[in-house]
Amino acid sequence: MTQKIPVVQNIMNANDQLAAQNRARLDQAGVFAVNLMASPGAGKTSLIEATLKRLPSTIQVAAVDGDIATSIDADRAAAAGATAIQINTGGECHLDAVMLRNALDQLGDLARFDLLIVENVGNLICPAAFQLGTHKSVLIASIPEGDDKPYKYPGMYQGVDALIINKIDLLPYIPFRMDYFRKGVEILSPDLVSFPLSCLTGEGFDQWVDWLGTSIQEFHA
Amino acid sequence: MTQKIPVVQNIMNANDQLAAQNRARLDQAGVFAVNLMASPGAGKTSLIEATLKRLPSTIQVAAVDGDIATSIDADRAAAAGATAIQINTGGECHLDAVMLRNALDQLGDLARFDLLIVENVGNLICPAAFQLGTHKSVLIASIPEGDDKPYKYPGMYQGVDALIINKIDLLPYIPFRMDYFRKGVEILSPDLVSFPLSCLTGEGFDQWVDWLGTSIQEFHA
Repeated sequence: MTQKIPVVQNIMNANDQLAAQNRARLDQAGVFAVNLMASPGAGKTSLIEATLKRLPSTIQVAAVDGDIATSIDADRAAAAGATAIQINTGGECHLDAVMLRNALDQLGDLARFDLLIVENVGNLICPAAFQLGTHKSVLIASIPEGDDKPYKYPGMYQGVDALIINKIDLLPYIPFRMDYFRKGVEILSPDLVSFPLSCLTGEGFDQWVDWLGTSIQEFHA
Repeated sequence: MTQKIPVVQNIMNANDQLAAQNRARLDQAGVFAVNLMASPGAGKTSLIEATLKRLPSTIQVAAVDGDIATSIDADRAAAAGATAIQINTGGECHLDAVMLRNALDQLGDLARFDLLIVENVGNLICPAAFQLGTHKSVLIASIPEGDDKPYKYPGMYQGVDALIINKIDLLPYIPFRMDYFRKGVEILSPDLVSFPLSCLTGEGFDQWVDWLGTSIQEFHA
């Protein structure tokens, strides 16, 4: 049986088509776009803040922040120097390509930007299933979430281009078996590049910012 | 406009009817049931483990553990002394009343149990929308998730009967404004009973276990 429920299949096809249109639009404007995903509270907004501080000031950044409610995240991204748009999903537990298209409309002339960071809704499940049209997907794992998350949320760990392991400053205080965690990641994504770091202390941040800078350069090459 | 999309409306109505049937079944068997919800890694399974250790041994406990993949949680609940059933949701980001009905079928004679703990899928959004038929809903917040979660996930904080604030042992290492957090909770649920505690150190656990024990007694009275 390969037939899926038609209504679900149609929604996913329509989303993928819109995602392809978003991608074409970003490519044409020369904007490298990242889809940032994580659990609630893993540090998506903190990562955006800390990254903006360290990126060369020549790189113009836009941020699109998805949430159920409030503009807390977009306000923080804006305060950190990004042009920021808040998407309130109205209860939806993930962003989709329509929502990103509307946010791109709001951003106006995209050619002003070098980098777009899309902060997805805090959720380790559904965001993995919806293409947005971004160039890279980045997942933030967080030490206090526990070392079993790759095993329990395989869909999310399987489909990403880079993995940030945040809050390593808490390692002394939490039972977290890094070997067990890394083994779970390796089973799903053997070559996944990972960046253990702390948004709070700044430890490990250089490697992540280097990777991001190189990715932007390669995109423009 | 009060009309909703019919297909969604029908699904929710069907779910609520099944939830009512689950509730009647639990009532008849004399099983007090709790729907335990939280983000991934907030400590649902750890709470079950630590609670089972402290409950009087006369209370017979069943656990139903919802996850996308693996039986890690049910294995832990079983090792802690519960009769445990794992539900793998096949990608769904929440439990629903059908899944609980099937789990109740698997548990066999429900009258053996005094307490059923349903560990929902790790998600701060969709589980709030699906009634299961349990008697009380309990939300676990976690200090490292950050103090803005009530503001950002109001649907979840609004509909619960008790709030556990887990991982208070990490308060010295994390910028967490307890006043700001509590203010957010109070706006949504002015009279919500809350239990700051640590599953790791056991601090604050007595009050939670007392509340649970009293709730079970009141249910049987």
